[in-house]
Amino acid sequence: MSAPKLTVSRRIRATPYTPKVESLGVSGYSVVNHTILAKGFRKSVEEDYWHLKEHVQLWDVGCQRQVELKGPDAAKLTQLMTPRDLRQATAGQCLYAPLVDGNGLMLNDPIILKLADNHFWLSIADSDILLWAKGLALGMKLNVKITEPDVWPLAVQGPKSDDLMAQVFGPSIRDLKFFQFDYFDFDRHPLLIARSGYSKQGGFEIYLDKPSIGTELWDALWQAGKAFNISPGCPNLIERVEGGLLSYGNEFTMANNLFECGFDEYCQLDNDVEFIGKQALQQIAKRGRERLIRGVIFDGGSCPPCQQPWPLTINEEFVGEISTAIWSPRFQRNVALAMLEKGFWQAGTQVEVSSSDGLIRKGLVTDLPMQDKQIRPLLPAD
Amino acid sequence: MSAPKLTVSRRIRATPYTPKVESLGVSGYSVVNHTILAKGFRKSVEEDYWHLKEHVQLWDVGCQRQVELKGPDAAKLTQLMTPRDLRQATAGQCLYAPLVDGNGLMLNDPIILKLADNHFWLSIADSDILLWAKGLALGMKLNVKITEPDVWPLAVQGPKSDDLMAQVFGPSIRDLKFFQFDYFDFDRHPLLIARSGYSKQGGFEIYLDKPSIGTELWDALWQAGKAFNISPGCPNLIERVEGGLLSYGNEFTMANNLFECGFDEYCQLDNDVEFIGKQALQQIAKRGRERLIRGVIFDGGSCPPCQQPWPLTINEEFVGEISTAIWSPRFQRNVALAMLEKGFWQAGTQVEVSSSDGLIRKGLVTDLPMQDKQIRPLLPAD
Repeated sequence: MSAPKLTVSRRIRATPYTPKVESLGVSGYSVVNHTILAKGFRKSVEEDYWHLKEHVQLWDVGCQRQVELKGPDAAKLTQLMTPRDLRQATAGQCLYAPLVDGNGLMLNDPIILKLADNHFWLSIADSDILLWAKGLALGMKLNVKITEPDVWPLAVQGPKSDDLMAQVFGPSIRDLKFFQFDYFDFDRHPLLIARSGYSKQGGFEIYLDKPSIGTELWDALWQAGKAFNISPGCPNLIERVEGGLLSYGNEFTMANNLFECGFDEYCQLDNDVEFIGKQALQQIAKRGRERLIRGVIFDGGSCPPCQQPWPLTINEEFVGEISTAIWSPRFQRNVALAMLEKGFWQAGTQVEVSSSDGLIRKGLVTDLPMQDKQIRPLLPAD
Repeated sequence: MSAPKLTVSRRIRATPYTPKVESLGVSGYSVVNHTILAKGFRKSVEEDYWHLKEHVQLWDVGCQRQVELKGPDAAKLTQLMTPRDLRQATAGQCLYAPLVDGNGLMLNDPIILKLADNHFWLSIADSDILLWAKGLALGMKLNVKITEPDVWPLAVQGPKSDDLMAQVFGPSIRDLKFFQFDYFDFDRHPLLIARSGYSKQGGFEIYLDKPSIGTELWDALWQAGKAFNISPGCPNLIERVEGGLLSYGNEFTMANNLFECGFDEYCQLDNDVEFIGKQALQQIAKRGRERLIRGVIFDGGSCPPCQQPWPLTINEEFVGEISTAIWSPRFQRNVALAMLEKGFWQAGTQVEVSSSDGLIRKGLVTDLPMQDKQIRPLLPAD
C-alpha cells in the first residue's frame, strides 16, 4: 500500500504544537488516541536515527493522552487495573505498567504517574482506557473521578537533552532521576516534567497542562536548542526496534497475554495484592507462555514497511511473525520485532522471513534490546 | 493544515477490501476504530455527491467495527448501555442507539443489531466501546462474552442499490425493510445484510464475516454494478451534512449530553427500564438542554475544511460553533453542522461564521435534515 493522504477533521485532533510541526515540514502523520502524531520530517529515517543518537530533538507527543483517576478510590482502581505492585510507589514516580483484562490479555501499557496518594495519570498507548476505567468504576461503584485532562506532552530526547533543559528550566533539572517527575517553572507556570520518553537516548517529557502557552514553550526550547543542533523529531523506528521499545497494536494486541509480551517484571503474582486478571495470569504462569516477543535480524537488502504481519518459518513450519521491520544502518541488516512461538524464541535461532515484497530472507532471533556483543558474532563477515 | 500522508502500520488496520480501494485510486484516508476509511477517489466531492444521489456506490466501511455481546446477561448489559427502550426489539432489527455514561454524556452512537435474545452486535462509531462494555461487565459481574468479531461491513449506497443487490443476492432482497437485516447466500455462505447505511440515498450494509471472500464479494458487486454506473465511494460530506447525519468526535463528543445531540427520540425516561445515566438524563430533561446540534447555511464563497470548531456569533456574542462545513452545489451556499447555544437554535436565526480563512460570513440556522422548502425562501435571490 502506498502512503495516502490523511484527512483531518475535529475527530482527529491536532495538538498545541501542530502549527510548529507543520512549519518545520512534517512529512506524514499517524493517528494515536484520536490525535495526530508526526512520523517524519525532512531528514530520512536513517539521518534522523543518527541525529537522535548524537544531538537533541523536540517531539510533539500530544497523542500520549492522560487518563486521570482522582478521588477516594483512585489508588484502589489504579491497582486493580495493573498486575504491577504499586504499594511502594511514591508521589513523583513514573511506573511502566501493563493493563490487562480478566483473562490477562493486554489492553494497554501506559506509564502511570503517581501525583498523590489518590491521584494518578495513566499516560496511555492507543486504546480508550478512559472507557475501561469508567466502566470498571461504575460497575464496582467506586468513588473516583475519571477524566482526560487538557494535558499535551512534549518530549525532549537525545544525549544533549540535559544541557538543553538546564538552559530553559535551570540546572536543578539535571538532578531529576530516571522515571521520576517534578515541577519546574516556565513563564511563572509550574510544569510537570519527567525524565522519560519513547527512546533509549535519554531525555524528558513535559506534561503541558496549559495549551495556550504551547507555542511559547516550543519556541523557548527551540531557541535554546540551536546551540545543541536541535531538530524536530518523532519516535524513530530504527532506534525503537533496536531498543526493544514495543508499540501496542503493533507488537502486541488484545489477543496477547502479558507473558507473551515479556512483561514478567511488571507482574507480581505472589502476594495478596488484588488486581484484574490475577487468576488467569497465575494459570498462564503455571503452564508457561506459548509465544514471546523477540528481536529478529535479517538480510536480503532493505525491506519494505511491515503493514501486516510477516510469517516466520523454519522448513515451511510457522514459528512466528514479524510486526515491525526496518533497515538498520548500524547492523547493515534489517531489524525487526516479532512474536515467536514456543521452542523458537532462543537467540540465534535461524528463521526464514517472508516479507511482503515476496522475498524469502534469512533471519536470526535476538534478545531485546538488540546488543552489539550478541549480534556481531552471529553475522557472517561481509 | 495541509493534507499530509498517513503512515500505515499493523496498529492502523487495513480491511479485506483495501487492495480494491487502492486499485481504484483512493485519494486519502481517515482512521476510525484503529482502521482506515477511504475519504475520496478520483471524483471531486461534488461529482461524488451527484453520483451518489443518482446511481450506486460501493463503500469499504470495514472501520465500522462490531462489539459482540453474547451470553445469559447480553440483553441486560445492552439495555444498561443505552437510554433507548429495547424491550420491543426483535431479532433481525437494527436500532440506532446513543450510548451514555453515568452523567448522560455521549460515549458513542452505534447501530445495535439484535441477532437473538441474548446476542447483539453494536456497530460502533469511533471509540473503544469494547472496553466500556468489558469494564461494566467485569465490574457488575455479568455473565456475557464481549468480543470484536472478525466482521467487515461493506456498504452499497444510492438509489440503484436495490437493482444491484437483486442481481447478486436475488430478488427477495428487495423486500428487506429499512433497518431490518436478514441472511442471503453468497458463494454458498450466508451473509448478514441490513437495509441501512451512512447516507440518505438508500442502500444496504453487508456484514462480511468471512474476510477470505472479501475480494470475491467486492468483484461480484462491482461486475453487476457496471450496468448501473457503479463507482467506489465513501461517506460524502455534502450529503452527510445536508442529511443531518452526525459523526461522533465531530458534531458531538464526550463533553455533550444526549439531549444536546437531539437524540430525544432514542431516550425513554418514563418507564421502569434501567440504564446507565437515567437519573442524570432525567435531571437534564427537567431543567432543559443548554445547546443543540443544528444546521447552518452560510455564504461568502466556498469555505476551507473545518478542522477545528469555528465560532458562531451575533454582535460578537458567542452563540455556538460549527464542527463540519462544506460547499453545497445544491444550495450554492456552504452547509454546516453546528452546536447552537440556548436561545439561538431556532431555524432562521441569523449568525456570523468565523471560518478559519479569516472571513466573517453571514449564516442562517436551519433544521436537520436540511429541507429545500425551509431553506429556499430564506435565501436572497442571486
